[in-house]
Amino acid sequence: VAARKIGEFELISAIEALVAARPKSRGVRVGIGDDAAVLQTTSRSIVTTDALVEGVHFERHWLTPAQLGARAFRVASSDVAAMGGVARYVLLSLTIPEDMPIGDVRRCAEGLIADAEAASTSLVGGNISYGPVFSLTLTVVGAAGARVLTRSGARPGDSIVVTGTLGDAAAGVEQLLAGGRRSKLIDAYRRPPSRLAIAGRLARGSDVTAMLDLSDGLGRDLDHLCDSSGVSARVDLDAVPVSPSLRRYARAQGTGPLGYATRGEDYELLIAVGNGEAGLRRVARACKTSGVAMTVIGTLGAKISGARVRDSFERPIEGGWDHLRRRPSD
Amino acid sequence: VAARKIGEFELISAIEALVAARPKSRGVRVGIGDDAAVLQTTSRSIVTTDALVEGVHFERHWLTPAQLGARAFRVASSDVAAMGGVARYVLLSLTIPEDMPIGDVRRCAEGLIADAEAASTSLVGGNISYGPVFSLTLTVVGAAGARVLTRSGARPGDSIVVTGTLGDAAAGVEQLLAGGRRSKLIDAYRRPPSRLAIAGRLARGSDVTAMLDLSDGLGRDLDHLCDSSGVSARVDLDAVPVSPSLRRYARAQGTGPLGYATRGEDYELLIAVGNGEAGLRRVARACKTSGVAMTVIGTLGAKISGARVRDSFERPIEGGWDHLRRRPSD
Repeated sequence: VAARKIGEFELISAIEALVAARPKSRGVRVGIGDDAAVLQTTSRSIVTTDALVEGVHFERHWLTPAQLGARAFRVASSDVAAMGGVARYVLLSLTIPEDMPIGDVRRCAEGLIADAEAASTSLVGGNISYGPVFSLTLTVVGAAGARVLTRSGARPGDSIVVTGTLGDAAAGVEQLLAGGRRSKLIDAYRRPPSRLAIAGRLARGSDVTAMLDLSDGLGRDLDHLCDSSGVSARVDLDAVPVSPSLRRYARAQGTGPLGYATRGEDYELLIAVGNGEAGLRRVARACKTSGVAMTVIGTLGAKISGARVRDSFERPIEGGWDHLRRRPSD
Repeated sequence: VAARKIGEFELISAIEALVAARPKSRGVRVGIGDDAAVLQTTSRSIVTTDALVEGVHFERHWLTPAQLGARAFRVASSDVAAMGGVARYVLLSLTIPEDMPIGDVRRCAEGLIADAEAASTSLVGGNISYGPVFSLTLTVVGAAGARVLTRSGARPGDSIVVTGTLGDAAAGVEQLLAGGRRSKLIDAYRRPPSRLAIAGRLARGSDVTAMLDLSDGLGRDLDHLCDSSGVSARVDLDAVPVSPSLRRYARAQGTGPLGYATRGEDYELLIAVGNGEAGLRRVARACKTSGVAMTVIGTLGAKISGARVRDSFERPIEGGWDHLRRRPSD
């Protein structure tokens, strides 16, 4: 059944029914079905909003509706992780083209709910409207951890650390655009990592001085970090962690893997670590406990004029990736 | 300059600059410019999300960008008012067509910020993306008042009260669709009422048993109230408050004003009032203090089978208005 055949209220009812079928969530005083949600919150809430728009951030045939829903949650909650917080509630605003099968809308919401619940996050509200393309705008409401990890606390001498491997998702998008449908790189795009657990753990210690998520690409995001903290960065490009799949794929394309590693869509954490070797050891231990790979890729220095992010040979590193300019159809 | 000429980061910077130019807001620990906002919140937060999509909810030539921004805030915060809460923070997610002048995006954000600030609400975050049409998705984070006024507390015997007049905005949309550009009715569409102040006042008393905002139309919203509270409603249709402008316009169209009064877009409050005549007197006094007109339009009764909302002659009242089905182009 296509969306045009049924009305807004039936659609909302269908999604309400999905939510009603789940166990009642802690902290939700009034959930979906009233004018607004009433939520138990702590004194410091973390709030972020993010949109995935068909034709700009994804094509519908790139992933299943359930994968899209889960991906939307991971992308949006990544910003809460980057502050060292815990995601507690999520709101979902959908625009739906008239020809979209209603089953796909339901499966998308189911995928989101399941992935959110795995992070102890509840769907508490939303909105549905027709629109020319499918889009999902998520708002995640979280609770701050012991410390709030902003972008602005890094100091010269801090180590630059990243989690996981970089560039897989960007290469996956390239494969999707070329008609690819199955690969490890495409899987990385379809299912970004969730770094909420390790981020919360890091916020309990005092070694991390600044943190953000790698959504815009290593170059651009390091630039943000340097801007906000008033520092410069020197990155050992050979140390940037890259998966064997990406290395193989890049070689086959006659290029290096680093171009992919600065394109964005990684949703790994970029972390400034202070307290010298002892700080790094504690962060490494926390990552190990959480089962998350981490790599030291460079060092922060004093503010300099000109390009703030340079490689080991003091050469400026190419910038990141501007969501607004880049389209799947490019 | 059209949106395609500049990148996401420049656009975000322009809006960040707007926010930075305002006095620092109470409660905002980390505002726009980091991964997420960190906000001081109370133990009970009210959260709601709402979208306005070009071609579905508005056409760009129907109102100025500043009016659109302000309207978006009023529509979204109306749900917080309906719970008896205070709007404290707002997040704005925009999709922007490539041909849209950047000045319009800025003026839209300015209109939103100004109207939100008048309600002591701060813009604390957002997202910008290309999209095929202009759309604004707002999330409003509020604080619960002394009491949370849901839809489910109404009891048989309660009076049914509405604020303001109904139907003006729906008639204004009809005029806009017919090419109209200036009228009181169009003004009502462009600038919905803000009922945050009176709603907060009502939440401090104990006479209101249930409340919601009239966004879907009197028929549909009364239906929601009856559903949630397990009651029926009898409405004196002659009592439904209608402006002289609407009465004149409807007469010229050879129809009555009530059809417009149940189409939605009013963003007035629908209130169930208990405690008999004394309760009504106190609610009337609160409305008078806030400068808000109020009208008793009927009484709630015990749950009945069949249509729950009937007129004084026990005839079912036609249902409301399904956002998803209705398009400006219809």
